[in-house]
Amino acid sequence: MDLHPNVASLAPLLGTWRGKGRGEYPTITSFEYADEWTFSHSGKPFVSFVQSTRSAEGKPMHTESGYLRGTGDGAIEIVAALPTGQVEIGGGRADEAAGVLTLTTDASVTNTPTAKTVERVTRSYRVEGDVLDIDLAMAAVGQELGHHLASRLTRDTMPT
Amino acid sequence: MDLHPNVASLAPLLGTWRGKGRGEYPTITSFEYADEWTFSHSGKPFVSFVQSTRSAEGKPMHTESGYLRGTGDGAIEIVAALPTGQVEIGGGRADEAAGVLTLTTDASVTNTPTAKTVERVTRSYRVEGDVLDIDLAMAAVGQELGHHLASRLTRDTMPT
Repeated sequence: MDLHPNVASLAPLLGTWRGKGRGEYPTITSFEYADEWTFSHSGKPFVSFVQSTRSAEGKPMHTESGYLRGTGDGAIEIVAALPTGQVEIGGGRADEAAGVLTLTTDASVTNTPTAKTVERVTRSYRVEGDVLDIDLAMAAVGQELGHHLASRLTRDTMPT
Repeated sequence: MDLHPNVASLAPLLGTWRGKGRGEYPTITSFEYADEWTFSHSGKPFVSFVQSTRSAEGKPMHTESGYLRGTGDGAIEIVAALPTGQVEIGGGRADEAAGVLTLTTDASVTNTPTAKTVERVTRSYRVEGDVLDIDLAMAAVGQELGHHLASRLTRDTMPT
């Protein structure tokens, strides 16, 4: 099935990716994780994503899911839900140059009453061939926007 | 793997469910759809859900994903993302009586700039044996809270 033209620029993201990541933040002890992302589509003007992370021992850690909406001319809207009690909503851009796709998003965050407070999340995805680099920064628990997660993944499954 | 005690009351929801639904709203023509929901867990204090709907011809229609967070004593928080450009965040309750699970949630909604405006979504899930009834009401596009979706599903796959 063809990608909808509004998300055609996201084609290099499609598939399942696996790799390793490292997390840090001023308020926590740094940690490492196994990272897995799947990006898929149904022919509509959005790409679905699901992430799941595991510890070195294979224990489930984080998961999240959401959608990248293409609104035309490389403009992307992001909506995401996190079981830690957050929803993200924001926008960004997808650009391709010299065979490298760069997607950046900036989202405001709303938190459930029992969740830790996250205010803002910025994401960067960079695809070059079968390598995906992801970076995430956040403003949370009273801290300024700062680096939180970085992972490097390789394409494990081609899109169906 | 055992369900986390905070979401133990949601056990009857686990698995994949399929059935038929009908949608209506003052601003649209009523429609029918094939409905599929999967509820799963990883031992953490939340249940993940993914919905997908299809037309009678098997064409993808709507999809959404999110999480039900158990905070204890039957209290549930809901976070969800919708590729139509919405995020939902709210709370509710799970109760079981005479073998019937009832889960109700009430969420406020935030919309991306290019999305149709939804303000509030209430959901009701009722499980009796292998039958799941879902109802959804919304306040959207300037309308008061009103009925939008109803579907009846049967359990297709037991939880893994």
